[in-house]
Amino acid sequence: MASNTFGKLFAVTTFGESHGPAIGCVVDGCPPGLPLAAEDFRADLDRRATGRSRHTSQRRETDEVEILSGVYEGRTTGTPIALLIRNTDARSKDYSAIAGQFRPGHADYTYWQKYGIRDPRGGGRSSARETTMRVAAGVIAKRWLAERHGVRVRGYLSQLGELRPQGVDLDVVEGNPFFWPCEAQVPQLETYMDALRKSGDSVGARVDVVADGLPPGWGEPIYGKLDGELAAALMSINAVKGVEIGDGFASVTQKGSEHRDLMGAAGFESNHAGGILGGISTGQPLHCSVAFKPTSSLRLPADTLDIHGNAVEVITTGRHDPCVGIRATPICEAMVALVLMDQALRHRAQCGDVGEITPRVPGGKPDPKR
Amino acid sequence: MASNTFGKLFAVTTFGESHGPAIGCVVDGCPPGLPLAAEDFRADLDRRATGRSRHTSQRRETDEVEILSGVYEGRTTGTPIALLIRNTDARSKDYSAIAGQFRPGHADYTYWQKYGIRDPRGGGRSSARETTMRVAAGVIAKRWLAERHGVRVRGYLSQLGELRPQGVDLDVVEGNPFFWPCEAQVPQLETYMDALRKSGDSVGARVDVVADGLPPGWGEPIYGKLDGELAAALMSINAVKGVEIGDGFASVTQKGSEHRDLMGAAGFESNHAGGILGGISTGQPLHCSVAFKPTSSLRLPADTLDIHGNAVEVITTGRHDPCVGIRATPICEAMVALVLMDQALRHRAQCGDVGEITPRVPGGKPDPKR
Amino acid sequence: MASNTFGKLFAVTTFGESHGPAIGCVVDGCPPGLPLAAEDFRADLDRRATGRSRHTSQRRETDEVEILSGVYEGRTTGTPIALLIRNTDARSKDYSAIAGQFRPGHADYTYWQKYGIRDPRGGGRSSARETTMRVAAGVIAKRWLAERHGVRVRGYLSQLGELRPQGVDLDVVEGNPFFWPCEAQVPQLETYMDALRKSGDSVGARVDVVADGLPPGWGEPIYGKLDGELAAALMSINAVKGVEIGDGFASVTQKGSEHRDLMGAAGFESNHAGGILGGISTGQPLHCSVAFKPTSSLRLPADTLDIHGNAVEVITTGRHDPCVGIRATPICEAMVALVLMDQALRHRAQCGDVGEITPRVPGGKPDPKR
Amino acid sequence: MASNTFGKLFAVTTFGESHGPAIGCVVDGCPPGLPLAAEDFRADLDRRATGRSRHTSQRRETDEVEILSGVYEGRTTGTPIALLIRNTDARSKDYSAIAGQFRPGHADYTYWQKYGIRDPRGGGRSSARETTMRVAAGVIAKRWLAERHGVRVRGYLSQLGELRPQGVDLDVVEGNPFFWPCEAQVPQLETYMDALRKSGDSVGARVDVVADGLPPGWGEPIYGKLDGELAAALMSINAVKGVEIGDGFASVTQKGSEHRDLMGAAGFESNHAGGILGGISTGQPLHCSVAFKPTSSLRLPADTLDIHGNAVEVITTGRHDPCVGIRATPICEAMVALVLMDQALRHRAQCGDVGEITPRVPGGKPDPKR
Repeated sequence: MASNTFGKLFAVTTFGESHGPAIGCVVDGCPPGLPLAAEDFRADLDRRATGRSRHTSQRRETDEVEILSGVYEGRTTGTPIALLIRNTDARSKDYSAIAGQFRPGHADYTYWQKYGIRDPRGGGRSSARETTMRVAAGVIAKRWLAERHGVRVRGYLSQLGELRPQGVDLDVVEGNPFFWPCEAQVPQLETYMDALRKSGDSVGARVDVVADGLPPGWGEPIYGKLDGELAAALMSINAVKGVEIGDGFASVTQKGSEHRDLMGAAGFESNHAGGILGGISTGQPLHCSVAFKPTSSLRLPADTLDIHGNAVEVITTGRHDPCVGIRATPICEAMVALVLMDQALRHRAQCGDVGEITPRVPGGKPDPKR
Repeated sequence: MASNTFGKLFAVTTFGESHGPAIGCVVDGCPPGLPLAAEDFRADLDRRATGRSRHTSQRRETDEVEILSGVYEGRTTGTPIALLIRNTDARSKDYSAIAGQFRPGHADYTYWQKYGIRDPRGGGRSSARETTMRVAAGVIAKRWLAERHGVRVRGYLSQLGELRPQGVDLDVVEGNPFFWPCEAQVPQLETYMDALRKSGDSVGARVDVVADGLPPGWGEPIYGKLDGELAAALMSINAVKGVEIGDGFASVTQKGSEHRDLMGAAGFESNHAGGILGGISTGQPLHCSVAFKPTSSLRLPADTLDIHGNAVEVITTGRHDPCVGIRATPICEAMVALVLMDQALRHRAQCGDVGEITPRVPGGKPDPKR
Repeated sequence: MASNTFGKLFAVTTFGESHGPAIGCVVDGCPPGLPLAAEDFRADLDRRATGRSRHTSQRRETDEVEILSGVYEGRTTGTPIALLIRNTDARSKDYSAIAGQFRPGHADYTYWQKYGIRDPRGGGRSSARETTMRVAAGVIAKRWLAERHGVRVRGYLSQLGELRPQGVDLDVVEGNPFFWPCEAQVPQLETYMDALRKSGDSVGARVDVVADGLPPGWGEPIYGKLDGELAAALMSINAVKGVEIGDGFASVTQKGSEHRDLMGAAGFESNHAGGILGGISTGQPLHCSVAFKPTSSLRLPADTLDIHGNAVEVITTGRHDPCVGIRATPICEAMVALVLMDQALRHRAQCGDVGEITPRVPGGKPDPKR
Repeated sequence: MASNTFGKLFAVTTFGESHGPAIGCVVDGCPPGLPLAAEDFRADLDRRATGRSRHTSQRRETDEVEILSGVYEGRTTGTPIALLIRNTDARSKDYSAIAGQFRPGHADYTYWQKYGIRDPRGGGRSSARETTMRVAAGVIAKRWLAERHGVRVRGYLSQLGELRPQGVDLDVVEGNPFFWPCEAQVPQLETYMDALRKSGDSVGARVDVVADGLPPGWGEPIYGKLDGELAAALMSINAVKGVEIGDGFASVTQKGSEHRDLMGAAGFESNHAGGILGGISTGQPLHCSVAFKPTSSLRLPADTLDIHGNAVEVITTGRHDPCVGIRATPICEAMVALVLMDQALRHRAQCGDVGEITPRVPGGKPDPKR
């Protein structure tokens, strides 16, 4: 355990460096009988992939997932599911120039300090390339959550630099390369990104994820709270600097009479909490937000040090996203799905699928699929 | 494992309900030879305790910690350290009226949904009373971090409703009941809190924690990142709705040229990252911020449901904080200390105390205490 | 985590030294709604207790269990159950003489080597006193297994030195102080033990545990196999030197045609496997055996070293069992119960209580209680 | 987590079915800087491989290990090491006949019961094929243990049916296909095995493993004892039915005066304990024994059931070992090495590499390499 495994009962172990032979993961704990095939990973991997539009890195990822184990005759068997993706378009030469330098804002320096050795090719293990396997594992979790519990996990870009959506329509998110929830603003975003790219600079972003269909009761107090695990999952994504649940930091200036969600005969009357109370799902839609820092890999020169301690100037060529937040949307969805599935299995372990508990309140009817 | 344990190598398991016979914890994994006595817990427990001033809950906590195991002749032995605090001032009658009701903004409803049974006395397990043991365990972590690595963990209130510090001086924080870093504003805060208390309402707050003295290299990629575990630790505190590392959500509107921290001969020239890159400590001061929602327990009446699904009106008498964020400061410090100590042990496990790694850059000198 | 926790989903963390203020445990992960009261622990603690007869240690343990948390109005709530037992009859003076010496066959030397410090009072943490809490936690597991799955776990002494049972009748086991399954031999055992006690020496023993009522399907390949976890659980008991499942070491000289259990229309026709195949329960009775070494604490003098490296002679006064295996019977039962309950919850997590799986073979009918 | 991961800090996750596309593992937690190359796995994989002599399965395994990650320029980087072996000589047709039948003594029935679905090809996940990756991971652990601590782990066949070694010389073990420690008996073993093979039957075996060079202090009481984890590790190997530490079951008939190991000025004077006291290494050689049942796959017909519950007769063709214990020797070594490495890292985490502990007794000199 050097922390390359995520989840307790639905445990995903990822491996691989950006420019090594391959990246992959082992998904341990998937219930048996779930339909699964290699092509099922295509859609989400494409959503995350670079090169979808001129607004993201031009590095072409044509990732083919190979299922190495855990699936027999199209269904999961309950044994570990190993997924493999060979690294193809890895231009190591792009990085040779900076092999001995610490790129500002990158993990080069800290890996060097921690391990005394590092793989400099494309960031090695610290590259966002690793998140490809999170998305792949997330595909399995999303399917199980949908089939067994009717849970749907959807993300969107909720801020790009200063730009905010003038409205949120989840149905238009997949219709543009920015995962933007307001169609009318898409041309504006394209202009913004073109200018940004020309400037050689980058910008931060905010991503929101909404999950609906959750039954009440998921989440384990005290140190396995649903919101606590979502925070860990989302903060573990490259470039994330902040996480909010429900009203998040806006709660700081709120009054209690304003924030607390009242209940009426029909159930909750508002959702400032974001669908979680005491670390356990309320049955309302789950809502969280994530802050992404701007990419540190810029064409603009920067002062840094080399591994010998000499002050040098570094220029990052290579093919980078002017806004990493955009492609991060499916990654955020995947992490939320991984947390929800793990919590669903943990809830089932302690409280059972059915019967032991008989809720007696509105919205408390046991989910028939449970 | 129903998630009442925090940490992997320095593992803290807490137990106890707000109005049960006692609360306590078992600290497993503390290195042997650390000096420890019951009175060592006094200072931090008092900082967290209610009844310190008229601005916090008037419930009097006079918590006496008993060390049940793991210490012999004043030193830790390497065996589990069990700490016990008997619950004394527990006025269960205060809660009898609402035993059958779901208090808005509380975990009553979700515990009921999850377990089909709950202890209604003062919130039972979901009460912030549990955080007393986090503070107690944090005392052990703080001491080890200080003695062995010279690490110092300090928190302060960085926002109270709309009020922000006009300056940050960590040396004045302990001199006022608000953990406020700007002495001149203290009278203003007192006026604000008096008015708030009279109104019967509550307000949110922000708490910042700074840790200095960290060596570079702490934190485990990919799913045990230092920032990821801090996010989980802080989000697990009652009433927390958001967590930021370094610039946090401000990064969303920043340019990469502005955010990335350059390095010069003397090391890093800024700290937008908050002391963490790639999930590993840089050796700079660690900086994180936490958002607390306003207390939901108000004298103001609220619509809710009872366990039979009937719409009812609830009024919370009892003795509650108009701003839970204030007393949360030492709790946030404790969680940061628990994360740091756990990561320190994990780093030592994989990379060794000395020798295996020879850093070669400024600020890279191995900590002599390592 | 310094390994004082047993189990993954039904996690038992024990603490306490033999002569410290108290011993206790935290049981995390117990399903909600299970009836539980302090007096429920009495029977099994008495079975394990010293001083039941002249054949076991005369140290009087009158252990009163206090439930500190996790139970409300007589039922478990799903929150951690903390159990506490104060140490009363602790004659530390008995041990003062050997505080600086390493008792042969004891953990004195290894604790000293590992931690550089140790609590010498009665063996401190390494004392079998710790097993009291295993028995207490086992009571909870036994009850849940019985109520929810109809599983019954029973142990007996299957060998005392050279003495073997002339027959095995589980119904007579509780009728004699040796947990011996053959009533006719009890007088012979008493004579044997009296002579042994007079000689000042001790002897080894073998304990068998049988569990019936298990459904097929419990146990997690590959590294969480039911037999693997039973081996760990039983080997972790003080003085255990060997563990067998089913035919155990007798399998070494068997032929495959003899060992493999054939199946007929009625199901399995034999049980050489001991109820486990591929690490998963078959639905047949579970059968395991444990070897206990003879107590090392003897009145007979022994050569050893003191903590300064001087050769010295040690004589253990104090009150010790001439055969620790006898009282170990309920401890072995408890450990088997803890493993089974943990596996039951893990199976439920991955495979569900019902529905996802429809067995189609004899004995494959889903247990109605599942 | 469905238990396909072994170890806490040196964590090995294996995946793959006997006749799936590939088998592999992810080794997480290996310290950085350890030299490692694909060819390093050759020797131990050959020792375990089938087809080495006419006395083991004739299925030809020509396993080529590919290192997918975690190694850069010939050294481990501290990131997860993924190892992959493609399955080549997989004759699925051999198994088609029994796809719908439960082979006696195999996991077919229990996997079916647990998961409601199974991969029948060559036993699928339950095949001993999985142990290939244990041996591969063990190569890494053995190397680190040898380089850093001078620990050497060696196994041998200590019983084949009724045949026992007339002497134990570890230097001759690698000189014969049986890992037999007494050269003179090798012809006798060949005759025995030829007759056994002709008979179409199989036989059990015992394997011993000795590890020397251990420092005192490895092992974590109470539930992470060195002997407890060895028992779990060894019992988890296919076909194992018993585990002993030191004198094991022989302790049952021993007197305390005979079993306890006395100490003199030179240290311990005997080693009945097998190098472990209180779950912690004494610094003496570690000694454990394992019982293997006879293979259940025989040419001899057997009564069983098919998945529809019909009584049928099964004959296992295919290529099986008449004595699985022989090739299990390197597997046992690997599991012991995995346990030792994990415990070494865990000890380092809690007690440090150096300094915190200053042993003061013979044999207590800190290992200079620590």
